[in-house]
Amino acid sequence: MAITLTQQGLRDLAEGAAVLGTGGGGDPHIGHQLVLHQLRAGRKVHIIGIDELPDDALVLPSAMMGAPTVFIEKLPSGRGNITALRALEKHLGRTAAATMPTESGGLNSMIPLLLGAQLDLPIVDADGMGRAFPELQMETWNVHGVSGSPMAIASDHGDVCLIDTGSDNIRMERRARAMTIEMGGAAYICDYPMDAATVRRTSIPGTLTLAMKIGAALRQARLRHYDPFQALTAALADTIYSHGLLLFAGKVVDVDRRTVAGFARGTVTLDDQGEQMTLTFQNEHLIAHRNGQVAAIVPDLICTLNSETGAPVTTEALRYGQRLSIFAISTPDLMRTPAALDCFGPAAFGLTEPYTPLEQLAVTLAPTGEHDPGTGLEAVTPAGLRAHPGTR
Amino acid sequence: MAITLTQQGLRDLAEGAAVLGTGGGGDPHIGHQLVLHQLRAGRKVHIIGIDELPDDALVLPSAMMGAPTVFIEKLPSGRGNITALRALEKHLGRTAAATMPTESGGLNSMIPLLLGAQLDLPIVDADGMGRAFPELQMETWNVHGVSGSPMAIASDHGDVCLIDTGSDNIRMERRARAMTIEMGGAAYICDYPMDAATVRRTSIPGTLTLAMKIGAALRQARLRHYDPFQALTAALADTIYSHGLLLFAGKVVDVDRRTVAGFARGTVTLDDQGEQMTLTFQNEHLIAHRNGQVAAIVPDLICTLNSETGAPVTTEALRYGQRLSIFAISTPDLMRTPAALDCFGPAAFGLTEPYTPLEQLAVTLAPTGEHDPGTGLEAVTPAGLRAHPGTR
Repeated sequence: MAITLTQQGLRDLAEGAAVLGTGGGGDPHIGHQLVLHQLRAGRKVHIIGIDELPDDALVLPSAMMGAPTVFIEKLPSGRGNITALRALEKHLGRTAAATMPTESGGLNSMIPLLLGAQLDLPIVDADGMGRAFPELQMETWNVHGVSGSPMAIASDHGDVCLIDTGSDNIRMERRARAMTIEMGGAAYICDYPMDAATVRRTSIPGTLTLAMKIGAALRQARLRHYDPFQALTAALADTIYSHGLLLFAGKVVDVDRRTVAGFARGTVTLDDQGEQMTLTFQNEHLIAHRNGQVAAIVPDLICTLNSETGAPVTTEALRYGQRLSIFAISTPDLMRTPAALDCFGPAAFGLTEPYTPLEQLAVTLAPTGEHDPGTGLEAVTPAGLRAHPGTR
Repeated sequence: MAITLTQQGLRDLAEGAAVLGTGGGGDPHIGHQLVLHQLRAGRKVHIIGIDELPDDALVLPSAMMGAPTVFIEKLPSGRGNITALRALEKHLGRTAAATMPTESGGLNSMIPLLLGAQLDLPIVDADGMGRAFPELQMETWNVHGVSGSPMAIASDHGDVCLIDTGSDNIRMERRARAMTIEMGGAAYICDYPMDAATVRRTSIPGTLTLAMKIGAALRQARLRHYDPFQALTAALADTIYSHGLLLFAGKVVDVDRRTVAGFARGTVTLDDQGEQMTLTFQNEHLIAHRNGQVAAIVPDLICTLNSETGAPVTTEALRYGQRLSIFAISTPDLMRTPAALDCFGPAAFGLTEPYTPLEQLAVTLAPTGEHDPGTGLEAVTPAGLRAHPGTR
């Protein structure tokens, strides 16, 4: 089921990936423009299924690393990604058969597409996060014991750095973060070099086509004046991300955002007639509190979407006065195992709240009449709130 | 003239290298112990002349990078140096025929000896600074257009990073400095991979044997109760470091030292009956002011030596109340060319004072009777103050 991407497919993919980016993963407009430029120049983007490569084919995932707040001030040139891939190929003494995203996000789902178009390299329809996470060890690949090393990290100045921390992917993250900061807060990486058999065994499959489906659902909803959140819920219902729930809709009354230690960190607070929802983020949204109570928590997805259009708003674009809807999406089961939660569950971010599956929190905290955020949960959950086997 | 190092030769070399380290280059006791441990275990240190390798033999210089203030709190284990060399060899696809120091210094003249003993690799009797300098681009190799990249940088944890900034050695310094800080403020490097013909063309020759000569002169002076400063001056007179001058002797009355951005920076002030000398350092001493007037300036060597024994005192070991003598040494002519001064002259350190050769400053500022620091300059300059062709 190889896909050659059209311009409309690209628009859908960029927008859908930014929904899965859960506030992070970079700005979809920048990502879209980078790849659109390639399509307009006659280059092709070939997305291939996770089963379409021979077991021993080398796959080199590609991404940008850094604070999204930096990407929007220092636009990616689309050169450092080639530098990083070529350096890692040379170091390994092997040629990549394909690239793939490390995460789903408005920019980071696009970087492998850009690289694929530039080098005529297919892109595997899968990634290692199934959403966006802020740190390099927060990959299902790491959960399954894949070494992120050796990795390449490049700037737009032609220089490159190869980092090898053996099997210690947390140390790799620390070393690469320091180098990203030194490179100006944003850099191109190729990490977790893998054969295709390992990609199949350890990745979240189908996230590029899922992003296209999400983007198409939002586009169709706008065209036909459907409720975009109902459209999203419907689009997700038959996927491994089965629950899509509108948690809150309101006006942004406070944004506290700093670029610290190479990350965009902060909180955003929304208000709806005295009801409040506060999101805490580290590049991505980590936890949502409604009037002080947990409404959704990492690794479930917490998405900030424009209340009128459903368009994703990334953490670096949050502004006072925006009308936003907080839409949460359940992560696939393979991201809720104890090993997965050790790697990217609440404690990995220093949160003291335990992980509770979104759909379970939704039942507990389902708004009563007086707390109704404007759109009843039931109305946007076609299949109702099915019991879901949480892992803890 | 290959030398197999004896324990006494090692002691002399460590002490003499610390004199050439001009306050930096690391603690000679630590360096000495690291190599002594190898000699006691029966391993050999073979120092070879700069002419003893075939033109195309690969030489990989080795050193430690970081703030000397860190080395004395976090002792080198002598593992990361092997990690760095092996990683660079693998990356280049070639095996090193020899290693060599990047600079002269109490620790950094020892690291290649340690590596040579561990891996049975000869050490070339030369280096790229002819003293110690704080930054990686401050090498005669760089002055002659040799690329420092690719370089390897390793911690004691087994992880390693390869940095390639093409021909931009200043960018290499910045990237490597960030990684050194991330690695805890001290790291092992192998940089400026060169063939032996390039080593011959671009290095300061004979600095290991010069360090042994300096160390032996100090040892003999102590044994025979000679003035150590006269002994130093005599030992230097027939070398390319022709002028050795005692500038000042006094008591340390102030030390202002911070570890900033990966360097030990600060000033030390000495007093002798109201006369004062202040040294400013960045790992190494950069400029000496006597009562506000420049008495010596980088790249000439400004050495802080114990007033009684002549033993070098590195910047991290400076303490209030020490009785120190400030001994300056003229750099070889090949380090005073306009290109060399661009690379490691006063302006490269942000100093506004112009470079003036030590021997010229000494004539201008020769102490009068009332300013006599205790030891007359004439008495320690056997050949008198010969006119020396300064380059600017």
